[in-house]
Amino acid sequence: MTSAKHFELLRRDGQARTGRLTTPHGVVRTPAFMPVGTAGAMKGLHWREVREAGTDIVLGNTYHLMLRPGAERIAALGGLQRFTGWNGPMLTDSGGFQVMSLSELRKVREQAVTFRSHIDGAMVELSPERSIEVQRLLGSDIAMQMDECVRLPAERGDIERAMQLSLRWGERSRRAFETAPAGYLLFGIAQGGDIAELRRASARGLVETGFHGYAIGGLAVGEPQAVMLAMIEEVAPILPEDRPRYLMGVGTPEDILEAVARGIDMFDCVMPTRNGRHGMAFTRFGQINLRNARHADDPRPLDEESVWPAARSTSRAYLHHLVRSGETLGAMLLSEINIAYYQRLMHDIRDAIAKATFADFSQRTRAGWANGDIPAR
Amino acid sequence: MTSAKHFELLRRDGQARTGRLTTPHGVVRTPAFMPVGTAGAMKGLHWREVREAGTDIVLGNTYHLMLRPGAERIAALGGLQRFTGWNGPMLTDSGGFQVMSLSELRKVREQAVTFRSHIDGAMVELSPERSIEVQRLLGSDIAMQMDECVRLPAERGDIERAMQLSLRWGERSRRAFETAPAGYLLFGIAQGGDIAELRRASARGLVETGFHGYAIGGLAVGEPQAVMLAMIEEVAPILPEDRPRYLMGVGTPEDILEAVARGIDMFDCVMPTRNGRHGMAFTRFGQINLRNARHADDPRPLDEESVWPAARSTSRAYLHHLVRSGETLGAMLLSEINIAYYQRLMHDIRDAIAKATFADFSQRTRAGWANGDIPAR
Repeated sequence: MTSAKHFELLRRDGQARTGRLTTPHGVVRTPAFMPVGTAGAMKGLHWREVREAGTDIVLGNTYHLMLRPGAERIAALGGLQRFTGWNGPMLTDSGGFQVMSLSELRKVREQAVTFRSHIDGAMVELSPERSIEVQRLLGSDIAMQMDECVRLPAERGDIERAMQLSLRWGERSRRAFETAPAGYLLFGIAQGGDIAELRRASARGLVETGFHGYAIGGLAVGEPQAVMLAMIEEVAPILPEDRPRYLMGVGTPEDILEAVARGIDMFDCVMPTRNGRHGMAFTRFGQINLRNARHADDPRPLDEESVWPAARSTSRAYLHHLVRSGETLGAMLLSEINIAYYQRLMHDIRDAIAKATFADFSQRTRAGWANGDIPAR
Repeated sequence: MTSAKHFELLRRDGQARTGRLTTPHGVVRTPAFMPVGTAGAMKGLHWREVREAGTDIVLGNTYHLMLRPGAERIAALGGLQRFTGWNGPMLTDSGGFQVMSLSELRKVREQAVTFRSHIDGAMVELSPERSIEVQRLLGSDIAMQMDECVRLPAERGDIERAMQLSLRWGERSRRAFETAPAGYLLFGIAQGGDIAELRRASARGLVETGFHGYAIGGLAVGEPQAVMLAMIEEVAPILPEDRPRYLMGVGTPEDILEAVARGIDMFDCVMPTRNGRHGMAFTRFGQINLRNARHADDPRPLDEESVWPAARSTSRAYLHHLVRSGETLGAMLLSEINIAYYQRLMHDIRDAIAKATFADFSQRTRAGWANGDIPAR
């Protein structure tokens, strides 16, 4: 794999880094948060709102898209960007994780995973090579290697077997990716559960194979935050400085601050949209549950100083009413408010790193969350 | 009731009319279509999209709003416009129709209707006076008298009793409205089912009482279109020329063309948003079912000549995928596309009446629907 100039490290502040990741569909400012558009759509948001909220890159799920509408169909329609109308960088996962979590009758073999589609019951085979082929058909800017993710807690034997399998699948993924046009990127995924030694072995094996970027997988799957952070600390020093680092499936705003402090550049999570659908708002005062009766008569917005119009101008009373009434608009507004909050946080993180004030920013931000919501009226 | 200059008739073309209705929150161009924001929200749309689609006025449901979040609460929060953020004219129904269709254990008496709330089971009483009070608390620009609507087919005796009761309730509503500030409007509602004689008697009685505008209620409740049109033809000639006429709960684009040709100025219907949530698009080619497999590989938009961006630029393949996948974005896009189609139709209707070409416009529009969708690829 050539040492393409796809990642430019701009500044460092402690272990925290800010940079620019160049993809065929545009530049991603890091640290970056990728909202999750599972099946080619962001739940509750128009793509223009995803962009306006400050999003550079989104994540699509290979498992969902290969089953419906199908990778070959999306390719015939010009790829994911043209299909969806999201005209920016897109990362796709390998499909492996969802095979494990969503489908029945799955069978993991060295050669491939076989599973029953949760949509039409058809038996489907997914190999590392087919995963790369699917992601190439989708036209994703960043493809992920197929890996096996073990849910924690787990036995060391199971964790090690899955980690070794993932390394071999990484090599096969890299070979399969060799014909991809210049500019398209492939990331490897470090596994190893909560066992430091296995995490280090996984990272070393991946670096030997060589990828455009490195992800840390198999975390945020039920373990305490301290374990997650400890595993990042094992893996990060082994990874090359000049490649982006992506912590998969993470997380809360606080997780993000902690991981950035340990050198992570990229994140993805369904939390802003999923929690938005359940009446929760992310704010500088921490998470706020709009279902709570204290908001029923409150004409004040969530945060009158927010840069996002809906967070600054929609009353808590109206949001409360929408959530209680099950109105779609409640989920729409809270999802966009949450994505905008995450993206503003990433903006401020990048800014603080550039000014070498990240530790201070992190402390102030956490203090704001700890102080909690404004007093009820 | 004073002969306020709230309605200006601009042009007539046959029986069709175009005019300007002035309300405290702005001017409504007629013929007008009012999208329905049942519980203070338009399902699947932001208010800015409702406005951008060409909407002058929206409808809110008194029944829903009085039960949740409550009329007194909305009043304390500054009224419906400030509460919801829809800064334009709003019409509210009386609540009577939903009492009949949504609540259990309802009891209609001369004095009031008593019913059990479908939300919390509480017993609630709604009288013509309380309905006006609630609508005044909501701050609606146009209040409707409380009436009793009989589902068709029905016995003549039942229809006549409900019509007479509605006339008496209309008088009480008018008295209750006398303290409303200048500029706020009250409409009476003609009942009488599918019986011409009763319809005429109802209209004459209403005109005697005197309202700012006149609605025709109790239609589009299961009867054939021909019956609906015949009833309009009975009622319209009795209504004063200088007052707006509103056909409640109607309807399809074709219903609207037919009713405008018979002198109707205002409409409301849930069809654009409800059908949008079920995968149906209103277009100049007629209704299109995006769930249909013929769209799965079709990169073309619904209508490349549409003035509405989403109808012009979103591919049928993507809409098909969103609908099949149950993605919220599908309902969001189709709801806004449908509202925009309805409002563009109203715009073109007003334009045709102003140019005295309504009959020709109506014929061409209907021919387009009859021709059906563009050929499959």
